[in-house]
Amino acid sequence: MSAQNPTSAILIIGSEILSGRTQDVNVQFLATRLSKRGINLCEVRVVPDEKEEIVLAVNALRKKYNFVFTTGGIGPTHDDITADCIAAAFGVAIDVHPEAKERLEKHYAHTNTELNDARLRMARIPAGAILVDNPVSGAPGFKIENVVVMAGVPKIMQSMFDHVETMLPTGLVMLSTTVNCTMREGDLAEGLSAAQNMYPEVEIGSYPVSKDEGYTLSLVLRSTNKLRLTLATEAVMNLIRDRGQEPQIISLRS
Amino acid sequence: MSAQNPTSAILIIGSEILSGRTQDVNVQFLATRLSKRGINLCEVRVVPDEKEEIVLAVNALRKKYNFVFTTGGIGPTHDDITADCIAAAFGVAIDVHPEAKERLEKHYAHTNTELNDARLRMARIPAGAILVDNPVSGAPGFKIENVVVMAGVPKIMQSMFDHVETMLPTGLVMLSTTVNCTMREGDLAEGLSAAQNMYPEVEIGSYPVSKDEGYTLSLVLRSTNKLRLTLATEAVMNLIRDRGQEPQIISLRS
Repeated sequence: MSAQNPTSAILIIGSEILSGRTQDVNVQFLATRLSKRGINLCEVRVVPDEKEEIVLAVNALRKKYNFVFTTGGIGPTHDDITADCIAAAFGVAIDVHPEAKERLEKHYAHTNTELNDARLRMARIPAGAILVDNPVSGAPGFKIENVVVMAGVPKIMQSMFDHVETMLPTGLVMLSTTVNCTMREGDLAEGLSAAQNMYPEVEIGSYPVSKDEGYTLSLVLRSTNKLRLTLATEAVMNLIRDRGQEPQIISLRS
Repeated sequence: MSAQNPTSAILIIGSEILSGRTQDVNVQFLATRLSKRGINLCEVRVVPDEKEEIVLAVNALRKKYNFVFTTGGIGPTHDDITADCIAAAFGVAIDVHPEAKERLEKHYAHTNTELNDARLRMARIPAGAILVDNPVSGAPGFKIENVVVMAGVPKIMQSMFDHVETMLPTGLVMLSTTVNCTMREGDLAEGLSAAQNMYPEVEIGSYPVSKDEGYTLSLVLRSTNKLRLTLATEAVMNLIRDRGQEPQIISLRS
């Protein structure tokens, strides 16, 4: 992670993740998009749909990082308590937001659906927040200070993030290379450690993989400095060549 | 979650999750197994491979929950710092553990591999910890007080957890039913809220799903009390029938 970049955390509000019922896929989506934008993702937390835990986590994370992205808990049912928890965390009021209500009215008129009390709950927005567009299902997310609140359903969250991105700064883009080989970690560890010491501005990660993939070790180098990344990658490839193998370089990607 | 059950948290030590490179699958595996054992999973955190952050998270979680399960960072390379961080968090020494070393010697003799200094690092275990078996790749995990340290590679972690489970207590097993229908959340929200109020010992979760799956809403009911769960499930099914649909009940599972 680049020290100059904005920092961020993700807070997943989701009892369904903690019960094992649902496999989260929002972290990888957001992590990838934030990385491309030059925003460091420094921490992820998953908490249950319980007010006290949500408020504690929101307040801890918003003080520690430049941005917090929450997913989940903004639908119309009794277990959707995120908006109220965010209001409580910031100590502000929450009420039906006129523009949010208007968006719901339009969305439901279009689909011939009654805007009942339950659906109207989705227009309740903490005071001072600005709305985040939801092109998929109408009900908006919101941003209050440095906290961005999005839906948990991946398709909806992803559509919201297109709008969220326009509100975010950019940092130095993280570049990365991946070098694969069929050696084992223990054979390369000493050399990798030396390479890491020589190139402190490049993060060198070593990930053993299943043999089914045709190689056994994936070395991932990440840096915002392209020259240093190229040099460190060359050093790592030479480590492998020194042991009589030809490394397989996968990509230089941002 | 049952109030009487032991509580737990997962700490994923993994810069590769935070960069978006790797999709975590360990949370769902552990969540499912813990649920079956009657241990509540109350929180998940993902932190980077950085000493200060790991120590902070370990100390916060081990004080708050009965058990903490960590994954990642126990291999032979420079980015594997979990064991040292756990020792630092507990304020205890760390050194080569004779039995861990013996296990590595056996494993590597078997595969005709040199037990070099890098590999020997994997035998460094905080003082007072007991070893966790690793049937896949030899290098043990460990348990110190209420913190269990496992590998990050899913196949290895899963094999370690078979041993870990024998060290854990059991709680009341969480039972659950899933009721699917093609209605929308907003149409059922009021009735669901009433059902939740009538059966407070049953957690009722409402999860909209993609239309591709043939239904639009998944209602998940969870409780350790089978009778109350059955009654609440019947109440939810009647809500759907009252609106002219026949609900689809998927399962009563533990």
